[in-house]
Amino acid sequence: MGKTFKLLGIGVVAATLSLEGISWLLRCLRDGRGRPVKEVLFFPSTVTCINHLFLPGPCSCPLPHGDSTPFTRLLRHLLSARSSLDLCIFAFSSQELCRVVQELHRQRGVSVRVVTDKDYMMISGSQIGALRKAGISVRHELGGFHMHHKFAVVDKKLLITGSLNWTHQAVQGNKENVLVTEDSGFVRPFLQEFEKLWEANDPARSAALSDFIML
Amino acid sequence: MGKTFKLLGIGVVAATLSLEGISWLLRCLRDGRGRPVKEVLFFPSTVTCINHLFLPGPCSCPLPHGDSTPFTRLLRHLLSARSSLDLCIFAFSSQELCRVVQELHRQRGVSVRVVTDKDYMMISGSQIGALRKAGISVRHELGGFHMHHKFAVVDKKLLITGSLNWTHQAVQGNKENVLVTEDSGFVRPFLQEFEKLWEANDPARSAALSDFIML
Repeated sequence: MGKTFKLLGIGVVAATLSLEGISWLLRCLRDGRGRPVKEVLFFPSTVTCINHLFLPGPCSCPLPHGDSTPFTRLLRHLLSARSSLDLCIFAFSSQELCRVVQELHRQRGVSVRVVTDKDYMMISGSQIGALRKAGISVRHELGGFHMHHKFAVVDKKLLITGSLNWTHQAVQGNKENVLVTEDSGFVRPFLQEFEKLWEANDPARSAALSDFIML
Repeated sequence: MGKTFKLLGIGVVAATLSLEGISWLLRCLRDGRGRPVKEVLFFPSTVTCINHLFLPGPCSCPLPHGDSTPFTRLLRHLLSARSSLDLCIFAFSSQELCRVVQELHRQRGVSVRVVTDKDYMMISGSQIGALRKAGISVRHELGGFHMHHKFAVVDKKLLITGSLNWTHQAVQGNKENVLVTEDSGFVRPFLQEFEKLWEANDPARSAALSDFIML
């Protein structure tokens, strides 16, 4: 009886230590690849030079240099893309954000898809034309109302969403928010919404529908 | 030595069982009050009757009746308020959402504070005047750019944020998103932003500043 109890004790000690060890190991591995991103950015953001995000080395332009503004944080999240950027954006006239998207497409081989609003893509200063000229896949809302989303999903796992349109005024003037998260409970539905809008606004679908109506 | 080891075994077993028991108890208590809210709502939403959210019993109006549309989900989250509703909203012309806010203020004794945009509060159909007439505390952006947020915090612990302005077109026409979360990592910064905007747009502050400039 005493021996059995002793063995039971040894067993429990060994099991507890093993579980603790596995838990510690998992924590170490998790910390090694960083905690899941969870961040809120508020705008307006001060104007700083963003050249250092694209080119290594010092920059001598007259703008202030810094890396902790909400805008540079936003750009860094976007530039973290390694495979894909799925973007649903109502108004897109920021040249800096256009530079980021073009950099991802041209220099880093990231697959970029953009869904935008049909009315706002034609406003003065819109960067949608520049994206299309650069060979980026852009589709616009074919329905009767606005495609008013302002979200991006990076590499199918990082969601960037909020009130911020990608315009100069939104970034530097307005009170705006951007929420950044890797929580799959949020990322997954936004990815599904993107795919739904991407398919619904396929121009081939629209052409086929026009042909059907004209028959 | 044998006795010491036996006692050690008993101790470890007791400690392990206690920890497991406490953990189980905490899980039970947590499940009892429900898991933290985490939801994404996409719009447009179909039009359904919302009378049942305010009055018990059946309704015979001609609208379809249902409780699972994104809009009714949004209204239910707002109507869950017991103590406070802090709202930052760019455009507010939805009569249904105005009814919700007035219900919280008048019938349920919820402390409601609203920050809105100075230009959009004057557009045709804006409900801001109705809120002010009902005695609800409303402040509007005093700065030069737009207060473009669209978020609400219920009872200081539930964040509702996204692209959705509180307008008829946004709810029933546009492609929009609303993210709902109790994650304090998101709720806390939005509460701080609300308090910042509430203080910055205090009309007394503005009057004091005008007096100072006129001196």
